[in-house]
Amino acid sequence: MRKIHVIGIGAGDPDQLTLQAVKAMRGTDVFFLLDKGEVKNDLTQLRRDMLDAHLPAGSYRTVEARDPERDRKAGGAAYSPAVGDWRSARAGIYARLIAEELDEDGTGAFLVWGDPALYDSTLAILQEVLEQGAVEFTYDVVPGVSSVSALVARHRTGLNRVARPVQITTGRRLAEGFPEGVDDVVVMLDAHQAFRGYAEEDMDIYWGAYIGTPDEILVSGPIAEAGPRIERLRAEARERKGWIMDTYLLRRNPGDA
Amino acid sequence: MRKIHVIGIGAGDPDQLTLQAVKAMRGTDVFFLLDKGEVKNDLTQLRRDMLDAHLPAGSYRTVEARDPERDRKAGGAAYSPAVGDWRSARAGIYARLIAEELDEDGTGAFLVWGDPALYDSTLAILQEVLEQGAVEFTYDVVPGVSSVSALVARHRTGLNRVARPVQITTGRRLAEGFPEGVDDVVVMLDAHQAFRGYAEEDMDIYWGAYIGTPDEILVSGPIAEAGPRIERLRAEARERKGWIMDTYLLRRNPGDA
Repeated sequence: MRKIHVIGIGAGDPDQLTLQAVKAMRGTDVFFLLDKGEVKNDLTQLRRDMLDAHLPAGSYRTVEARDPERDRKAGGAAYSPAVGDWRSARAGIYARLIAEELDEDGTGAFLVWGDPALYDSTLAILQEVLEQGAVEFTYDVVPGVSSVSALVARHRTGLNRVARPVQITTGRRLAEGFPEGVDDVVVMLDAHQAFRGYAEEDMDIYWGAYIGTPDEILVSGPIAEAGPRIERLRAEARERKGWIMDTYLLRRNPGDA
Repeated sequence: MRKIHVIGIGAGDPDQLTLQAVKAMRGTDVFFLLDKGEVKNDLTQLRRDMLDAHLPAGSYRTVEARDPERDRKAGGAAYSPAVGDWRSARAGIYARLIAEELDEDGTGAFLVWGDPALYDSTLAILQEVLEQGAVEFTYDVVPGVSSVSALVARHRTGLNRVARPVQITTGRRLAEGFPEGVDDVVVMLDAHQAFRGYAEEDMDIYWGAYIGTPDEILVSGPIAEAGPRIERLRAEARERKGWIMDTYLLRRNPGDA
């Protein structure tokens, strides 16, 4: 039976690999590296560097494939179905990769940035591949340091305040309104800087881009002051590198509740 | 200047240590191991085993101290102040440990289960020690694999569903009502099995105790069926070991929204 590891590799700093991740990598025959267009070179190379650093040369193979384009124009209610179509297309690619590139008793792996449980589709796609039934395999998950944990570690703050909840959500949802019942909100996948809608609120923001890499940028402070600075730094960085990965924590101050 | 590392050491599996955590440990002169009464022996020993496994003998010292008792009888609105008092008492202990056990150019470390950002008070206490001004030091945070990530990895599921938020909260808050605006809720610090209040709902539960250790127990399924099983297994395990560390994800099914 084929075996697949879904390995969380941390948020960008190669030293955020766990010992468990390194062991799983050492037991892997074939690594499937899927790239996403413009961020391809940097992020694929970072994963190749991790393999070089921890595995004996010649002990593994890599197979690169291109992720199908997601329909990013679909907004609002259309968002989930568009993601669904994209997943099905990816499921077909994953099924072929596993069936054609992996021996019947071989072990493959997908290397996932951060933690595979948080806003990553690999687990759902593998489940869909199994449901399609064209190829059989077992799989396990190696948890990773999430970009959320990496962000707040660099800011030396906690996610939650004492006995309080924390919510993790998307930029799209934050643009629709601040979540109910929480004062601490982590925002991911925010291409449109939804924090700008809260510039008048009594909130602090803890923002980071390329966390744990040499390009890391960190900004924190009251959102009225830090927000414009983040906008400027984010635009400059995105222009310079061609892509950006960023996330932030919004912390509403108690007096505002 | 004294230096302190706050090191996330993962959720229980010693292989969940990151390479960054091992490097920080190797640069540490004194480890401060604070114990909490009944869970003392097992959890302190697990941390000692990690030090033995990764550091040369004789390259470090450990200092054990007892955490002051928290007033667990205080409920409701009194919860936060009780935690506050407890933090101040701990701040005094931490200040003495750092001042008396660490040379002026020495490096100390606190080893924190899971990720230091999530329902752990070490960062807040160190900040309070600095504000008290009796001892000076710099500190940094090494993020860890959270018990939340470890839980869902073992269940091979994600935390969020596509484009949806996820909330992390406490058992005390869940007992007051299901959070607004989310269908995926991770519950920590739940001594009273607040999930029992949702047995009639169309929800799935993904529960785990002692995750990543040889004692690990996992149960998942519709809450009406899995709930009673979790109650029984949890009571048996708690009786057998004298303590329990568990967490769970509640996932409300879409039809119920």
